[in-house]
Amino acid sequence: MFLCVEPQGQDLLHDAMKSTIFHDDFMLQSEMARRLYHGHAAHLPIVDYHNHLPPDELAADKRFETLTEVWLKGDHYKWRAMRALGVDEQFITGSASDQQKFLAWAQCLPQTLRNPLFHWSHLELKRIFGIDQYLNEASAAAIYEQANSLLQSPGFSARGLVEKFKVELLGTTDDPCDNLEHHRSIAESGWSVQVLPSFRPDKALQIHDRPLFLAYLKKLEVASGVAIRDFNTLVEALQKRVDFFHENGCSIADHGLAQMPLAMAMSRSLTDEFEDFLNPKYAKAYSNPAAFAGALLLELCRMYHERGWVQQFHLGPLRNTNSRLLAALGADAGVDSIGDLPQALPLAQFLDALDRDDQLAKTSLYNINPAENEAFATMCGNFNDGKTKGKIQFGSGWWFLDQADGMEKQLNTLSNLGILSTFIGMTTDSRSFLSFPRHEYFRRVLCNLLGQDVERGLLPDDEAWLGGMVADICYRNAKSYFNLDAGFLTQKDADF
Amino acid sequence: MFLCVEPQGQDLLHDAMKSTIFHDDFMLQSEMARRLYHGHAAHLPIVDYHNHLPPDELAADKRFETLTEVWLKGDHYKWRAMRALGVDEQFITGSASDQQKFLAWAQCLPQTLRNPLFHWSHLELKRIFGIDQYLNEASAAAIYEQANSLLQSPGFSARGLVEKFKVELLGTTDDPCDNLEHHRSIAESGWSVQVLPSFRPDKALQIHDRPLFLAYLKKLEVASGVAIRDFNTLVEALQKRVDFFHENGCSIADHGLAQMPLAMAMSRSLTDEFEDFLNPKYAKAYSNPAAFAGALLLELCRMYHERGWVQQFHLGPLRNTNSRLLAALGADAGVDSIGDLPQALPLAQFLDALDRDDQLAKTSLYNINPAENEAFATMCGNFNDGKTKGKIQFGSGWWFLDQADGMEKQLNTLSNLGILSTFIGMTTDSRSFLSFPRHEYFRRVLCNLLGQDVERGLLPDDEAWLGGMVADICYRNAKSYFNLDAGFLTQKDADF
Amino acid sequence: MFLCVEPQGQDLLHDAMKSTIFHDDFMLQSEMARRLYHGHAAHLPIVDYHNHLPPDELAADKRFETLTEVWLKGDHYKWRAMRALGVDEQFITGSASDQQKFLAWAQCLPQTLRNPLFHWSHLELKRIFGIDQYLNEASAAAIYEQANSLLQSPGFSARGLVEKFKVELLGTTDDPCDNLEHHRSIAESGWSVQVLPSFRPDKALQIHDRPLFLAYLKKLEVASGVAIRDFNTLVEALQKRVDFFHENGCSIADHGLAQMPLAMAMSRSLTDEFEDFLNPKYAKAYSNPAAFAGALLLELCRMYHERGWVQQFHLGPLRNTNSRLLAALGADAGVDSIGDLPQALPLAQFLDALDRDDQLAKTSLYNINPAENEAFATMCGNFNDGKTKGKIQFGSGWWFLDQADGMEKQLNTLSNLGILSTFIGMTTDSRSFLSFPRHEYFRRVLCNLLGQDVERGLLPDDEAWLGGMVADICYRNAKSYFNLDAGFLTQKDADF
Repeated sequence: MFLCVEPQGQDLLHDAMKSTIFHDDFMLQSEMARRLYHGHAAHLPIVDYHNHLPPDELAADKRFETLTEVWLKGDHYKWRAMRALGVDEQFITGSASDQQKFLAWAQCLPQTLRNPLFHWSHLELKRIFGIDQYLNEASAAAIYEQANSLLQSPGFSARGLVEKFKVELLGTTDDPCDNLEHHRSIAESGWSVQVLPSFRPDKALQIHDRPLFLAYLKKLEVASGVAIRDFNTLVEALQKRVDFFHENGCSIADHGLAQMPLAMAMSRSLTDEFEDFLNPKYAKAYSNPAAFAGALLLELCRMYHERGWVQQFHLGPLRNTNSRLLAALGADAGVDSIGDLPQALPLAQFLDALDRDDQLAKTSLYNINPAENEAFATMCGNFNDGKTKGKIQFGSGWWFLDQADGMEKQLNTLSNLGILSTFIGMTTDSRSFLSFPRHEYFRRVLCNLLGQDVERGLLPDDEAWLGGMVADICYRNAKSYFNLDAGFLTQKDADF
Repeated sequence: MFLCVEPQGQDLLHDAMKSTIFHDDFMLQSEMARRLYHGHAAHLPIVDYHNHLPPDELAADKRFETLTEVWLKGDHYKWRAMRALGVDEQFITGSASDQQKFLAWAQCLPQTLRNPLFHWSHLELKRIFGIDQYLNEASAAAIYEQANSLLQSPGFSARGLVEKFKVELLGTTDDPCDNLEHHRSIAESGWSVQVLPSFRPDKALQIHDRPLFLAYLKKLEVASGVAIRDFNTLVEALQKRVDFFHENGCSIADHGLAQMPLAMAMSRSLTDEFEDFLNPKYAKAYSNPAAFAGALLLELCRMYHERGWVQQFHLGPLRNTNSRLLAALGADAGVDSIGDLPQALPLAQFLDALDRDDQLAKTSLYNINPAENEAFATMCGNFNDGKTKGKIQFGSGWWFLDQADGMEKQLNTLSNLGILSTFIGMTTDSRSFLSFPRHEYFRRVLCNLLGQDVERGLLPDDEAWLGGMVADICYRNAKSYFNLDAGFLTQKDADF
Repeated sequence: MFLCVEPQGQDLLHDAMKSTIFHDDFMLQSEMARRLYHGHAAHLPIVDYHNHLPPDELAADKRFETLTEVWLKGDHYKWRAMRALGVDEQFITGSASDQQKFLAWAQCLPQTLRNPLFHWSHLELKRIFGIDQYLNEASAAAIYEQANSLLQSPGFSARGLVEKFKVELLGTTDDPCDNLEHHRSIAESGWSVQVLPSFRPDKALQIHDRPLFLAYLKKLEVASGVAIRDFNTLVEALQKRVDFFHENGCSIADHGLAQMPLAMAMSRSLTDEFEDFLNPKYAKAYSNPAAFAGALLLELCRMYHERGWVQQFHLGPLRNTNSRLLAALGADAGVDSIGDLPQALPLAQFLDALDRDDQLAKTSLYNINPAENEAFATMCGNFNDGKTKGKIQFGSGWWFLDQADGMEKQLNTLSNLGILSTFIGMTTDSRSFLSFPRHEYFRRVLCNLLGQDVERGLLPDDEAWLGGMVADICYRNAKSYFNLDAGFLTQKDADF
């Protein structure tokens, strides 16, 4: 006996037939996933609350000469891939022409199957330049020409690229010594996109590298107008810069650390030692860099709390492992990797030291090693205070984990061990003006996971219920978490 | 050309159409999964060999006033969710009325999608109170009323709730100083369910907190009748309590530790120091808490082996991280999380120290961090002795991991690196009388995994073969491992 | 309304109906997976660049009396399973007859469902002995007889078993003191399979066990003709052996370590101490074993680089945990497990120390703990030099991870964080002549993953593109990486 199946049968066949990278339903493997993405996520604006975009290029509304300049220069993901594929450094960061470098990349891309670069790159070419074919050696020349030509047209300047993606907010990452002139200039220009600085004082904590540290304190003295003679005046100088950043619209701090400091208290003798250490003639290494960093970080976090800021901690990478390339290219040369230091105990002790005195600001914890996902997700739950929804965030899949597998692991761990519906979602953390399709990527991953759960009977088959959560995660939670005005959705909420 | 598909096509469409949380086939995504669960697992009794149920409430056959009392009070999973969702502590552990607290939880539950609480809660409401709808603000009042009313009816007392789930054994968790009066009273009452104590001497190892430790030794002196003057008399006192527990039916010990002790030997000077340390006027911290804990634990484990007990180790959590909530609410306030200390080496050394002298009891190792699953599963294989089937158990997904994803990871790692068929399966580890549906949850997860493997051609398509393994894991292995009489299945085995 | 579905509908039903372990499409769950495997992988020869096959048995073309001898003797995976299942050691490594041991194993195998042994064992029986049924107590006698009889026929000697699988290269694992007579004898015999030694000087680094270490140095003195009086002469002796191995066709080194050494520099005082330590009357432990091991390893790695070798590091296991079985059976008794020491920092520092001076050879890093996969995969990317494609390899799933789940995790992590297309693929790492079907297993896993991605729209639906990558990973990359002549595929490439 044969049976014919009802229309749902069609649905099961949808994926293999239609969802390729160039298709609207890319990654959306169920009917509910497609309804959630197209109906509740795709059209939402973007709150990109943490990235490394250059404020000067936004202020000047920079234009780009070539696709190489805007797409390859500075992208250490692509550099790593090219080195792995045996491309000479000359064609990566060296003296080759922009065209030669682009061709080298085009030759590499077909060999990156299953690496996120393959999806990211084609998604960027499609969404930004309308290119609907695979980039490879054969298609390279035409694509290069088409993209370069578009780069000269309106809408492809730094600001134009941002506008293309309905970005409402850009949170840049800035040194405390920065005078924020570009942020002011952007604000004064009346641009529709808010560009706000974030306060990232990493260099003030890195006492283990004495020459760099002392040079940095000199800059900080100039920026703050405070003579740094001891620990207290260092704190005072940083407080001045927090105040200055706050006046310029900053409400986010950010820290990058291999792990949270293992100590937090400056004894009298450590304080005295620090005073001596500041003397240019003093020649010894500081005896307890962890205690110094911990104590200073505590002081900073208290300032953030007082100001009502959000603090972010990006934890776990092992940086600058290749001293040859570090010497040749400087930091961010593509020679950083995922570390495996223990994170839980120092993180618990640090957060508790703040919470104990009711000085724990809203906090987002970003984890670089999936093996630590469970420790991070449960740590967040220890310090929610019942006053702020989602106060302690388990941050979005980050850096190496900013791809489908990493995002899925973060979303699944957060779901199982925390409350997914409070999540503030994705941010690019990118240096590139072409990275905004990564929000689309995240939204597709999220909707696909939810759709899959509906198919398996694990979630209610209820589009409105799930769609509300999708819109919260992709947009509304971040607006609320960062105290942005709720303009867009308060009026148009009914559309979703 | 079009083809019509054979009946199997129907089967592929089954999931999306039928398996929701309120459906009999919840989580069972293949025909084999459904056959295994309904035919070989669903009707088996429960051996809940490790939980934290209060013996006094079982002895008194306690009745509950409200759903809040029996369901929310003491459930730190729900507390954490509510705090994350911004609910004030007043409505969680505070002074709000039971009704207010229930409403607060009802408002939260729809926002916990993808967290196990969403499944657990609805499964508990359905299986225990027959409620077939989602709990939310709208349904809260009716559900509260219905459940409260049922709680007053026969079959909803402490014992009634246990009986509802065909529980054969409850293994409670008890302090060595406990006089076990409630266990004796239950046994004397002739209740059909065996309620046996487990010996959990954690406090005797925690020498790092001197006041608590000394106070505990005082209690132990009273309970044991032994004056504790040194390490040997401490061991003697504990031996008395092991004997006492054994006489009262105990055959299981349990330990909760962040990791196994890093040392195991008490030198002469450490023994002397311990003697001094017991002096109330002595004011210093003990110099080597790890060696003390390791040495005492070794002594205890030798006693367990001599008595033929099973020993359990629950390893890895980071407890009481939030000192503010610890001070306000005491331990188990929902501020514990998953730790990331290394486990393999201290575990290997400890187990070897016992095995070397042929004093290693049957042992179950519970792991809190999935990143350690592989280390745990392979560690078990090092100490199986070829005499007892499944002697060293990789314990069931526990605490934070007591959900589908955590169970699947534990089952998959155990399968790949150990012998799944020897597994003694699930135990609730719960403080609540409503948690027994978690055995059902586990059984569905197990059957679903096996069914999936059959669909993929990875397992034989042989219901009897697989069904036998399912019944072993869900019931028979535990009976045998804990030396319980095999009553139920020896007669009725043919039914499965 | 009813719709009939197009032929693709058939495909969706394929799996459950056809792909069981004895079927040609085992593990291949999509049409693309089947096309990739059968068209681009199945017929490729095998480059088994790292294993532990005994060269003497290959030189003598050893014959095997019984299936027990060739299949169970020395297989510590099976031993662990049998111990877990409660089989007495007598029937595992003890005095029972070969027939009794085989029967014991046959009784166990049906209880190993979901453990890789279940697949491996049946795949080996099928591919080597043509056995198409499950091994269990009932089928044991017939299978034993059939296999034993085949073992006496041509094609079932040591060399015959290797030839059955189109093996082109065997990379054995050899001690620096080995005189390589068997390798020379095999080469001189004109056998079509290349059997090349690998240099594995683990014992020269294990200074923590003084008696064993000194005894080893004695052997090394004899083999090298160098009197070892200090660190320099030790290095000189090892250099002689590297030279000797090189002359005998060796181009691969291998190291097994719990983690990379935490130090690398021998101070003057450590060098002096080493000199004293060599004196038989000296009685103390060496003060800094890590520095000694690190410094010596650096010297060795410089030799490998100079010779153009590939160096392999197998990192992370915790060995010989059970001292009772170690004493009874020696090393490799099946009492090793997965360790959880941190790997990233010592690995980064070691590789950088070599790269800094441009002395980093091609390197393959094997990881034993999946929790470290991401750290390993990203570490590799730090030291690719843009000259050699895939210079730093994240090695194949190894030991406990040499099964579908472990392979999939390694392949997925490598894909996401590195460049899959440069991967040199599988090697058996086995002591057994029956393990070659594990290459088939790997190829099926790989093709299945790619096919799955095509079905989900994540990879281009392009058989030639994907098939080229499959052939590279399964065969061509290894040929090129190990500088083997490209004989087979240069002529026959068009067939794939």
